[in-house]
Amino acid sequence: MQAINLHKRTLGVTLAPNEPATARVWAPEAMEVVIQYDETQTTLQAEEGGYWAAPVPGLTAGGRYKFRLDGKEFPDPASLAQPEGVHGPSQVTDVTHFPWTDGSWKNPALGSYILYELHTGTFTAEGTFAAIAAQLDHLVALGVNAIEIMPVAQFPGSRNWGYDGVFPYAVQDSYGGAEGLQRLVDACHARGIAVVLDVVYNHMGPEGNYLGAYGPYFTDKYQTPWGAALNFDDAWSDAVRRFFIENALMWFRDFHIDALRLDAVHAIKDLGAVHFLRELRGHVDGLMAETGRTHYLIIECDLNDTRFIDPVEARGFGMDSQWIDEFHHALRVTATGEQSAYYSDFSGIAHLAKAYRDAYVYDGQWSEHRKKYFGIPAPANPGEQFIVFTQNHDQVGNRMLGERTSSLVSVEMQKLMAGAVLLSPFLPMLWMGEEWGETAPFQYFVSHTDAELAEAVRQGRKKEFAAFHAEGEAPDPVSEETFNRSKLQWALRNQEPHATMLRFYQTLIGLRKSLPALRTPDRSTVQAEADEEHKLLTLH
Amino acid sequence: MQAINLHKRTLGVTLAPNEPATARVWAPEAMEVVIQYDETQTTLQAEEGGYWAAPVPGLTAGGRYKFRLDGKEFPDPASLAQPEGVHGPSQVTDVTHFPWTDGSWKNPALGSYILYELHTGTFTAEGTFAAIAAQLDHLVALGVNAIEIMPVAQFPGSRNWGYDGVFPYAVQDSYGGAEGLQRLVDACHARGIAVVLDVVYNHMGPEGNYLGAYGPYFTDKYQTPWGAALNFDDAWSDAVRRFFIENALMWFRDFHIDALRLDAVHAIKDLGAVHFLRELRGHVDGLMAETGRTHYLIIECDLNDTRFIDPVEARGFGMDSQWIDEFHHALRVTATGEQSAYYSDFSGIAHLAKAYRDAYVYDGQWSEHRKKYFGIPAPANPGEQFIVFTQNHDQVGNRMLGERTSSLVSVEMQKLMAGAVLLSPFLPMLWMGEEWGETAPFQYFVSHTDAELAEAVRQGRKKEFAAFHAEGEAPDPVSEETFNRSKLQWALRNQEPHATMLRFYQTLIGLRKSLPALRTPDRSTVQAEADEEHKLLTLH
Repeated sequence: MQAINLHKRTLGVTLAPNEPATARVWAPEAMEVVIQYDETQTTLQAEEGGYWAAPVPGLTAGGRYKFRLDGKEFPDPASLAQPEGVHGPSQVTDVTHFPWTDGSWKNPALGSYILYELHTGTFTAEGTFAAIAAQLDHLVALGVNAIEIMPVAQFPGSRNWGYDGVFPYAVQDSYGGAEGLQRLVDACHARGIAVVLDVVYNHMGPEGNYLGAYGPYFTDKYQTPWGAALNFDDAWSDAVRRFFIENALMWFRDFHIDALRLDAVHAIKDLGAVHFLRELRGHVDGLMAETGRTHYLIIECDLNDTRFIDPVEARGFGMDSQWIDEFHHALRVTATGEQSAYYSDFSGIAHLAKAYRDAYVYDGQWSEHRKKYFGIPAPANPGEQFIVFTQNHDQVGNRMLGERTSSLVSVEMQKLMAGAVLLSPFLPMLWMGEEWGETAPFQYFVSHTDAELAEAVRQGRKKEFAAFHAEGEAPDPVSEETFNRSKLQWALRNQEPHATMLRFYQTLIGLRKSLPALRTPDRSTVQAEADEEHKLLTLH
Repeated sequence: MQAINLHKRTLGVTLAPNEPATARVWAPEAMEVVIQYDETQTTLQAEEGGYWAAPVPGLTAGGRYKFRLDGKEFPDPASLAQPEGVHGPSQVTDVTHFPWTDGSWKNPALGSYILYELHTGTFTAEGTFAAIAAQLDHLVALGVNAIEIMPVAQFPGSRNWGYDGVFPYAVQDSYGGAEGLQRLVDACHARGIAVVLDVVYNHMGPEGNYLGAYGPYFTDKYQTPWGAALNFDDAWSDAVRRFFIENALMWFRDFHIDALRLDAVHAIKDLGAVHFLRELRGHVDGLMAETGRTHYLIIECDLNDTRFIDPVEARGFGMDSQWIDEFHHALRVTATGEQSAYYSDFSGIAHLAKAYRDAYVYDGQWSEHRKKYFGIPAPANPGEQFIVFTQNHDQVGNRMLGERTSSLVSVEMQKLMAGAVLLSPFLPMLWMGEEWGETAPFQYFVSHTDAELAEAVRQGRKKEFAAFHAEGEAPDPVSEETFNRSKLQWALRNQEPHATMLRFYQTLIGLRKSLPALRTPDRSTVQAEADEEHKLLTLH
């Protein structure tokens, strides 16, 4: 396993006191690598492993640069800022001197997390980190103690869910950039709120992805739903692994992020002897040992395989927790009777009872939707290793019209669903606005600057809904209207029935925090029985 | 996990006493499936899981048939015989009534195996199973107790290493077919020799592969060196898994095969929660519990990952043993100083000492040839889990001219290499003819009937040797001469220096069998030290 510097970033441009900046980039097939800034250029020297580096006197914070590989210029893969967008130059940024005030902050025990997922662009009218910080009173009053921020890596344009990011180290400029995120984390910690950051290590967005120009970041050994897979186990994969491991370490060390939510790790294709996630765990453990701080690794994983969350000693990858969409699907089908696409695998209340008992609904059964036997049992994994929700950005936004649960079920059913999640022996997660029964949709939106690509997304979106047999027209993902329509309507929370719903959520969260039986998720003490005839679920 | 019938084959055409034959085939996307034989046809009925089946009165052993899917005819994927070659009709074959005489046979403990790899077509002038049986005296006198037969699944034409097989259940007709193999196994058991069969579950040959016409046997999620990967974890993969699992069970149950050697399992791409090999292990264990017989699963695996060979209780896949090419490479580089292609990763004697100590030479180090950190340590795996050799079909035949070790090193060095293998704490394997220092090459040969394909193989072969910087022209793989040139020259064994070499091998094997310290491989008691200056390796 490769050595990784736990103390600082080594990729891109790094600053140090009383020394010139250092530039380093991985380009194993290049013959010459130059860093170009202002009217100046410096030739980098080859290092072991395909890296190139050099001190760059004169390049200071705020300076803009590109790398030139054998005559062609590209932004820095490890860029910390892209002030002119994904195609423009990278900007030197100092992320190591933020005046932190959270010295007394201690990341709460994972089992006490009550999560709140939000999208920076639509959580507030302003769509910035600063605007989130201005709403912390609301979150504190609600009672949640961890926000989970959808991906903030620089994406094309200013409107995107975040999964089209192409600069994993650069914080989206329109959200407030690196310093904006640091301010938000500091403010959250001051209010007792942990920060979970959603990061995408399984694919790159379709526009502004220059990684391939630098080296074999991708492999054609595997295909993912988003094209060729990132190279986690083929020749040269260690540099790709290091690129993402140093990224994770940066968020924890330099941004004080408490936990990462790793997007779709089933699409991290790695058949090598040491899985990428296992290696990541090792280095994060190393960082934690050095700093004395605690950081969690949470995964989204569509495999129902405990290997991901089992401890390293049990030959697992040591991830701390995972989303379980199946709990959602069972709950959703129970509440709405929906049966289209992947919901067709879920029977309703009997499956919901199984989710309470076994976490995985499919732990070895034939899945008619997947056309295969699916999953293995998870009897030994504690409740805090599973994150449940009544809805999330995907389950809302992947509907053609982006309807939240509030548009699909009655107020009373919303309350029942909230109870199902908040009183469960798993970690509950809210989706922004559900606490007041927000009525605005959360639709799919992009702002690709490449017109052809934008049109392809438009068409792809239409095609996708063939599977759902949805009626009507999909909203135009490229239109700014679609984005604006998806913003929370904060005024609602003072109106009925929203105000009552908000009080209901506050009360439930309060109960979860105060009742010993609910405070920490203990799966072993929970019995769940389904009475299908009366659509009755008994938990005791 | 799916249920698998341990008692009999369920796929293809099966015979039972006093009942009509049954035909069954998996074709999940077909609208109509018909079995066509003589002038008769029977329509199959759809079963669960995409299978189709029907009783077929009138179809008896020897009858020829094809399946017709929506109007197009193809041979049976689970055909037991292809008397007219890979494109012709399948033939009903009774493999369950062979008059076995091996009732008292007991598969030896794996740790006592002394393996002998052979290729049926070139082991003898006749190139048949019957001709192998006629040479058992030689093998008994030599002292080996297990032959490993290169793949016998029906391939195009009559000349092939076996890795181009396209009917995993059909024994190559030109070798003697199913009954010929059964006779050979029976004869081996009568002489105290176990039989290991090499099977290919990771790809299909390029000619006569009709699997894709029947259903999603392949997936485009993964690529292998031989094209699209067999579908072990995608939608419908359980039927593909069952196809191969029933195949393994057939060899053990109906052919009394003692062990399977699973070709290149690193190319069995399976990221699901239950790896195919783990499922296979479970069903083979089930069969063993039913019959009271022992069967071993041996793998070829290029991952240096103990997960494959660790016991199921330790979350391994439970394979019994694996080839370790790295021991060979270290030994070869020590003996010959070769440094081309993958040999470039091996330093010679220091790496050989490491192979004795650690089995895997690369157990976490940077591999310059692979351009990545490679492998994990295997401290807990006993010596019998590793199979070593001075040469094998690949290490000889993948050379441009197919030179055996005997053409590359002195007689004395051959003896030293033999000692290195036969006195090792691992399972030794000989490659046919090495015991007398055979001088004939073992070259790459095919007899594809598709002219375009044959030419592509010719060109591919030439291109391949760019990496080895070999001089001269590659022998024509399609020419019958190349095949004939590769046959053993049995007369040599009575001539010098071959007769002496043969006695040397006999003596070494005798020592291994008689000396308690050598009889069973015990890695824990072996110390290996390399003195690089004097090119000296001390084992004690």
